[in-house]
Amino acid sequence: MILNNDDILKLEKYNRINFINHLAGVKGAHLIGTRSDSGIANLAIFNSVCHIGANPPAMGFLLRPLTVERHTYDNIISNKQYTINHFNANQIKDAHQSSAKYPADVSEFDYLNFTEEYINDFHAPVIKESHISIGLTYVEKHEISFNGTVFMVGKIEFVRIADELLEDTGHINYDETNSVAVAGLDSYYSVSRLQREPYARVPK
Amino acid sequence: MILNNDDILKLEKYNRINFINHLAGVKGAHLIGTRSDSGIANLAIFNSVCHIGANPPAMGFLLRPLTVERHTYDNIISNKQYTINHFNANQIKDAHQSSAKYPADVSEFDYLNFTEEYINDFHAPVIKESHISIGLTYVEKHEISFNGTVFMVGKIEFVRIADELLEDTGHINYDETNSVAVAGLDSYYSVSRLQREPYARVPK
Repeated sequence: MILNNDDILKLEKYNRINFINHLAGVKGAHLIGTRSDSGIANLAIFNSVCHIGANPPAMGFLLRPLTVERHTYDNIISNKQYTINHFNANQIKDAHQSSAKYPADVSEFDYLNFTEEYINDFHAPVIKESHISIGLTYVEKHEISFNGTVFMVGKIEFVRIADELLEDTGHINYDETNSVAVAGLDSYYSVSRLQREPYARVPK
Repeated sequence: MILNNDDILKLEKYNRINFINHLAGVKGAHLIGTRSDSGIANLAIFNSVCHIGANPPAMGFLLRPLTVERHTYDNIISNKQYTINHFNANQIKDAHQSSAKYPADVSEFDYLNFTEEYINDFHAPVIKESHISIGLTYVEKHEISFNGTVFMVGKIEFVRIADELLEDTGHINYDETNSVAVAGLDSYYSVSRLQREPYARVPK
């Protein structure tokens, strides 16, 4: 079937939200860790983390419009540091629960089965149980005029990774991590490596 | 192990590229379809497609720096229309091959097992074999100062989807599509739905 713009806008609200959120396919899900000026740690789930560049190493993610309290955004702007943490299939319920609107004066770490940990003097917490945690310094943001979402860019300061996941070639073996991906806002998927393709060249 | 910024920069170049590209985890892979002023269709693979908003419906993706020819970018800026097409596990080799640097005067459709198709008067081609194709109009772009990558935003004009994939709730059943996801630039994964989580609320 073909749904045009009008057809989509006529869908029942939550069906439309599910549908449009699903169109990007099955994608990464990550927990972003931050800490407020008053020292309260925050964890929030995001499905928009992307690669920005390998030299210098940088990553991005998209934040929803700043029309309501966004603790992740506020903490990053205040303290410039944040972490991107992977989670696995056994941690889906806790990771998903981080999307609930906990008030700013409590930490998600107090309610979820994740342990707050600090690496050296980095201001933002990593999740002790994560097999991969990345520490970033905020670099720049871009507000999308179309709807007020904000694209955030950060420079990678450190990566903590379980030794057995990192292959000699720099590839990470996500089969070993029981990793998950997400479609839309609520549908979690397991992943399984099929094949690695060589660098593509135009045939002679 | 912990790798700090210096450790990462000391990695052999291609190992570093693989490593940093893998940090975002297993994520969506899509083929973006465009057409030049002179009518030559283009297909290129991207791993950065994300959700922007459901009302109005919009999606984004990140383009590498414009330091070399970028046919996708040029065609979008010239003609404002493009498509995002899903592919499945049987199409990985052809989808990956679209990353080769074909010259501007040939179409990837002539070299890959994908059929060029046009819906109504939309300027950009969809892939006939795709179970999901999305037509978008370019809205805005944001150049990331840090490294010259460009975040592109488009408004959804239509979605063509195989009827059996769309559930009553608006969810898309990616188990049925033999869908794939990608880690880094070259490692393709199958996906399998585990569970759907309810809307998360703070417990009383």
